Amino acid sequence: MSNIKSNDESLETVAGNGLLHRRMFLTQGAAMLGAGSLGLLVPNPAAAQSGTKLPLLPKTPGAPMSAYGDRSHYENDVHRSTLSYPGTTGSGGSWTPLESLEGMITPNGLHFERHHSGIPDINPDDHRLLIHGLVDRPLVFSIDDLSRYPMVSRIQMIECSGNSRIGWAPEPAQRTCGGLHGLLSCSEWTGVPLSILLDEAGVDPRGKWLLVEGADSAAMSRSVPLEKAMDDALIALYQNGERLRPAQGYPVRLFLPGYEGNISVKWLRRLKVTTAPTFTRNETAEYSDTLPDGSSLLFTFPMEVKSVITAPSPGRSLKDKGLYEISGMAWSGAGKISQVDVSVDGGKSWGRAALSEPVLSKSITRFRAAWRWDGGPAIIMSRAVDETGDVQLDRTRFVAERGSKRNYHYNAIQSWKIAENGEVTNVYA
Amino acid sequence: MSNIKSNDESLETVAGNGLLHRRMFLTQGAAMLGAGSLGLLVPNPAAAQSGTKLPLLPKTPGAPMSAYGDRSHYENDVHRSTLSYPGTTGSGGSWTPLESLEGMITPNGLHFERHHSGIPDINPDDHRLLIHGLVDRPLVFSIDDLSRYPMVSRIQMIECSGNSRIGWAPEPAQRTCGGLHGLLSCSEWTGVPLSILLDEAGVDPRGKWLLVEGADSAAMSRSVPLEKAMDDALIALYQNGERLRPAQGYPVRLFLPGYEGNISVKWLRRLKVTTAPTFTRNETAEYSDTLPDGSSLLFTFPMEVKSVITAPSPGRSLKDKGLYEISGMAWSGAGKISQVDVSVDGGKSWGRAALSEPVLSKSITRFRAAWRWDGGPAIIMSRAVDETGDVQLDRTRFVAERGSKRNYHYNAIQSWKIAENGEVTNVYA
Repeated sequence: MSNIKSNDESLETVAGNGLLHRRMFLTQGAAMLGAGSLGLLVPNPAAAQSGTKLPLLPKTPGAPMSAYGDRSHYENDVHRSTLSYPGTTGSGGSWTPLESLEGMITPNGLHFERHHSGIPDINPDDHRLLIHGLVDRPLVFSIDDLSRYPMVSRIQMIECSGNSRIGWAPEPAQRTCGGLHGLLSCSEWTGVPLSILLDEAGVDPRGKWLLVEGADSAAMSRSVPLEKAMDDALIALYQNGERLRPAQGYPVRLFLPGYEGNISVKWLRRLKVTTAPTFTRNETAEYSDTLPDGSSLLFTFPMEVKSVITAPSPGRSLKDKGLYEISGMAWSGAGKISQVDVSVDGGKSWGRAALSEPVLSKSITRFRAAWRWDGGPAIIMSRAVDETGDVQLDRTRFVAERGSKRNYHYNAIQSWKIAENGEVTNVYA
Repeated sequence: MSNIKSNDESLETVAGNGLLHRRMFLTQGAAMLGAGSLGLLVPNPAAAQSGTKLPLLPKTPGAPMSAYGDRSHYENDVHRSTLSYPGTTGSGGSWTPLESLEGMITPNGLHFERHHSGIPDINPDDHRLLIHGLVDRPLVFSIDDLSRYPMVSRIQMIECSGNSRIGWAPEPAQRTCGGLHGLLSCSEWTGVPLSILLDEAGVDPRGKWLLVEGADSAAMSRSVPLEKAMDDALIALYQNGERLRPAQGYPVRLFLPGYEGNISVKWLRRLKVTTAPTFTRNETAEYSDTLPDGSSLLFTFPMEVKSVITAPSPGRSLKDKGLYEISGMAWSGAGKISQVDVSVDGGKSWGRAALSEPVLSKSITRFRAAWRWDGGPAIIMSRAVDETGDVQLDRTRFVAERGSKRNYHYNAIQSWKIAENGEVTNVYA
């Protein structure tokens, strides 16, 4: 505690405009502020002394236990925002309300969705998974068969490759954090390593790719490099402990850690080993990256390093000047997050955020930083670095390097502007 | 792969009765079994070759997106079993169906419950948390106030101290794994370290304990050592990313990692700093450990090292002889799990199970082992060791050491018997 003084002018700052070392919070720094500074943390500390009454205890018993629980009706405003694309048969998405969540796990009811023909209602007893093509032994698995195989569990994120693409718009869109970046969720996935099933089928040496196909009425299809399939691909059956939700592929989905979400095909029905990519509609008409000259990059699978501050964020305004914790999420399809820096002066200076353990590969890492807001206008932003050394770019440089015709893989730095009244808006800074 | 031969008689065994090294599954061992052994893993591998038809793809679009998702109606049989104690006003519990879960996370809808007067319906805007007693400054916090404080997130388990107590019955109860041991769940908890709030209130040097009280109509009350409160106690606001569920203390609960569940008081309303324990009804009439001479131990807070095999388990029978993965959960209130051993010959010999990463302190660790069941009767069991070196005892020794008058802190080894027809039953072995 030697470097935190009780005079709040000398709190240890780590960057301009009041960014503090988070140790101030976590090693009794708040108490060290002393009686003279009381109220920096508690907005209305005198309430207890002036006789504020606590609500009375209820006099009647509460609700009974239930077979499968639900959340409080007071939380109904926390929900996914949904969008159905006009003129389609069930194509659309729903966005996770990132601004209302904490930690790394997304509860199953709020996991983002992206469907191309709605959610099929599949009886697991009737469902089958076929492995065929360039294999020694084509195999058909029921869900019961798959459940007998060895499994692994991993806490990993999945992000739609179109997430945040409104960042390419010429003016910053005024939406919540989840409305902008909420095609991103993180779960504990449990399933059978695909490598085990492919080994059992016996892959022909000519086999280099897989065609993977879903059992929705769109027959969503993508091409997967065999190398990825043999590395960390899962045939996922469980999500956060329970069976997959229908919106996440019940009864079985492919899960390709770190790759753009669309390729982790839901309601998985078929894997065909092929010599080359199949060039399906979903990976040619969509999910390709248009270059400035109008040509397109295909098969740009990994999601790059990215981060966003969830609090404060649009709709989560600041109320009074004083101490705040900045909280956000960082992730990378390439591995672990190694560092997140935060700026509260529009990028002029940066301080290191604390990363919440466990920091896992291709997962979400919660970061936190301490800030004393002086009540003036401020621009706050976060910048993540992953274990490969990849760093988020500021938006100006990102658009300059990537061009403006793209629809996918947007991962520039997000800036929020704090107004003097505490309101938070999306800005390009 | 040098030590796994294609002759399945020479698969690397790690203990008697067919317990195999799990590497067999995870490093292409299945393929190494060779064509002659095909079928060990896939019960019916010829299906694909004999023209099994895949179900047809649906021809109409599926269900649309939703604001807050639900699980498949095909999963309705997976639920908590509930029990209301007769003659009480809402006292009872519900058990997590451990046998139906995988990984470490319990989904919020299946988290176990233990209420003493039902679940109160609390409007978070009206709720307050009071810190008073031997403090320099009594403080009252609204939920909005608490949300402004710095937070930490941790994936940790909570276990009712009465979990598994039917293990003291003279004959083994025939229930599911969850019915026996399901007063145990694991979530990512996010909240404010209690130490920060206590520092801000300023604890008088005479203060050594806290009285903590819930806002249910039972006013559930317990005494907490100040040392624990200042160590890793959380004022928890979030569970698996979203706000606490009402059954878990919405809008705010105490969370004391590793301690018996009852002391992590839900619907937290009041913390009073005291010189000594308050000896509340809930910690004298209940939640004490009766010794053979009729006297009782009080304040036996930490839950000890424990494990259970969830698959196979009662209701999850084996179908044919052959290869299986044994899967289970291990946990300790004292820290991390350091080792889990599995026996499939009634404890005569033991082999090391693989622990699923991340292995976290006071959390659930999923363990897995490979077994080739020869179709004969077998008794399977798991034995966990934690980082303090504490080891689970077999039931005979456990009962001999602890006596048979206790109701709490049962953590003996659980044995399952596999019959020749594959059925699984609870046995004392």
